[in-house]
Amino acid sequence: MNFEKILKQPDNKRPLIQCITNFVTVNDCANIILASNSTPTMADDKSEVVDIVQNAGALVLNMGVIDKVEAMILAGKKANEMNIPVILDPVAASASKLRRDVLKTLLENIHFSVIRGNASEISHIYGKSTDASGVDVSANDEITEDNLEDSIKMARELAQRLDTIIAISGKIDIVSNANKTVVIRNGCPTMSLITGSGCMLSSLIGSYCSHTDNYFDATFVSMIVMSVSGELADEKRLKNKTGNSTFRNDIIDNVFNITEEMIIERANYEIYKR
Amino acid sequence: MNFEKILKQPDNKRPLIQCITNFVTVNDCANIILASNSTPTMADDKSEVVDIVQNAGALVLNMGVIDKVEAMILAGKKANEMNIPVILDPVAASASKLRRDVLKTLLENIHFSVIRGNASEISHIYGKSTDASGVDVSANDEITEDNLEDSIKMARELAQRLDTIIAISGKIDIVSNANKTVVIRNGCPTMSLITGSGCMLSSLIGSYCSHTDNYFDATFVSMIVMSVSGELADEKRLKNKTGNSTFRNDIIDNVFNITEEMIIERANYEIYKR
Amino acid sequence: MNFEKILKQPDNKRPLIQCITNFVTVNDCANIILASNSTPTMADDKSEVVDIVQNAGALVLNMGVIDKVEAMILAGKKANEMNIPVILDPVAASASKLRRDVLKTLLENIHFSVIRGNASEISHIYGKSTDASGVDVSANDEITEDNLEDSIKMARELAQRLDTIIAISGKIDIVSNANKTVVIRNGCPTMSLITGSGCMLSSLIGSYCSHTDNYFDATFVSMIVMSVSGELADEKRLKNKTGNSTFRNDIIDNVFNITEEMIIERANYEIYKR
Repeated sequence: MNFEKILKQPDNKRPLIQCITNFVTVNDCANIILASNSTPTMADDKSEVVDIVQNAGALVLNMGVIDKVEAMILAGKKANEMNIPVILDPVAASASKLRRDVLKTLLENIHFSVIRGNASEISHIYGKSTDASGVDVSANDEITEDNLEDSIKMARELAQRLDTIIAISGKIDIVSNANKTVVIRNGCPTMSLITGSGCMLSSLIGSYCSHTDNYFDATFVSMIVMSVSGELADEKRLKNKTGNSTFRNDIIDNVFNITEEMIIERANYEIYKR
Repeated sequence: MNFEKILKQPDNKRPLIQCITNFVTVNDCANIILASNSTPTMADDKSEVVDIVQNAGALVLNMGVIDKVEAMILAGKKANEMNIPVILDPVAASASKLRRDVLKTLLENIHFSVIRGNASEISHIYGKSTDASGVDVSANDEITEDNLEDSIKMARELAQRLDTIIAISGKIDIVSNANKTVVIRNGCPTMSLITGSGCMLSSLIGSYCSHTDNYFDATFVSMIVMSVSGELADEKRLKNKTGNSTFRNDIIDNVFNITEEMIIERANYEIYKR
Repeated sequence: MNFEKILKQPDNKRPLIQCITNFVTVNDCANIILASNSTPTMADDKSEVVDIVQNAGALVLNMGVIDKVEAMILAGKKANEMNIPVILDPVAASASKLRRDVLKTLLENIHFSVIRGNASEISHIYGKSTDASGVDVSANDEITEDNLEDSIKMARELAQRLDTIIAISGKIDIVSNANKTVVIRNGCPTMSLITGSGCMLSSLIGSYCSHTDNYFDATFVSMIVMSVSGELADEKRLKNKTGNSTFRNDIIDNVFNITEEMIIERANYEIYKR
């Protein structure tokens, strides 16, 4: 894999990443896009998203905001037309009727290059019932060594059905494009003790997808970079006895400083070919 | 008091805290809820708040956002019906006609378990005129040793009148449920030099109220935890010569790491029984 | 110049700075206003902005938010009527038809004491075509030693035409009120690797303008304080091997701790009188 191509961009050629995302984590999403050598725009008004997306290298639609469906569809269709990759983060997809409806509308109108969610969100899209009530994965849905084969099957089938890359993040991560699946065992539990680790990851996928035509590799690298950045931040947290706020800053800092060598040293994954 | 019960929750049983809050401090509110062993949702669309609040352990309504009154009332009424505690943060309650009207509407429609504000905001609810113009307490309203008896009387009477717990934060804090009042002398002036110390405190009250049925104790502990976290952050700020941004991160970190021992060592309060 | 007057305010006399600004950087804007000895309100509802601005020491309108034009005009007109300085940040002014229209409407309805943007944004207002596609300056517009004379001419002429102070931030900064122009060579490239360095700078200008009647000096000092805070943060970043998130926190911390001595030691500028 050409890590350097995915991680870096010449300073004067940073692609524009357009995010339509929620107010809770928008600042962190913008800063992680900058940390990963792209440049963000969070423009989300339906009157301008079509103008703006035409200059974008990727579009990230985050269902944490659900009153921007019209803008999402306008931007998404334009991006599809121009072959700009579109990433979906189906935040809390099953938590309310409104969200279930929004998800359905987005899937009907836009082709996504990547869909990144936790196991509850992806299970809901797959059609399995889930008891998740908020933005977190439910204990029953989480990917474990015990249900790993079933989870891989779900990711593969859903990737095939929607012609997309499915990325499930959690204690164990899965990335699949139907033909090829990777299982990643990096990261740390503290990542669930900050808001926005999922949103930031989806933004990072958008950022790296704009650096290459190989969206599978870009997604795979994003998952590893985020998890390794979390591991390093957690080691620092334990050493310095800090907490989740410093941990959040350190994750972004680590993405800023990540290198191919750090990834190779830490990455713990298996590739499954069908 | 059972500090451990209020401070901690098993990792897989973190209650969901729903906040309808403003865009300025929403990220800090979410992270302090995570730091205090609950999990946040900032869902605020009127079409879904009733669905979501049914799974919540507490609901926090923050008047920093004032175009979500309909969602607040829908969520608040549902929470009342289900005996989920509702916390009000009457941000800048007297600063405009719009805010005075919103406050009136909220108080008429929802029963609050706790109302947490600064002395100007609480004075306004009590019916005293105030010259506060923004989100800060006015110098004339601030609780001092000189007006302490009057302030306690105000808190007690208002708690009785609204059948709630009144929590006034400032240089001197007061918590009263009419029958029992505590006066707390912790914290530091630097807390007024970050945005969101009040919003974060109200979110923390929601978080701890979801851990126990004793909302008075939960509120009391929240006020101490926030103040002690501020004191510790300020000692670090002075030692490391940092500023208000690091101070904000350190407050959240300190809530993340707070223990019963740290509280007992630092807490400086008096209990007044009627 | 009376630095002390611009930098400091007695603790109980911190002016209220009203910002109508975007959700991406609003928290950082509020904290930099607090760091610079003012107090922020981000109230932006058209039903209350006129009430609130009457108590403000400055009003900052940031085009990062573009669905608040009505509130901006109401607040801006009231501020003009009361001689409260109004600062415009024309974020991404040329990036969409919507933004070009919003900008036109604001300039027609409000007199601005200061307009602060990057070279692409100011070029667009001046009437030059620009190829900027997002919130960043385009490479073709950036101020360099080669185009400095032309850039100064643009700033002077635009300041004259709009009866305002034009502040262009970038590798080289220019501040001009038509009669007097300063060129500042401080700052560091890392400032373009965080979101909000421009928004924070505009908020800082609002803050310092509320401390003095000399808006030119306030703007000049703001540009230097921001750049020097960036330089110091970048030295710390290189020393501690941190990234853009810590860098952002350190900029705000440095504004919190800035002194006249630090400014004098670092400031690198030339004054051009016409």
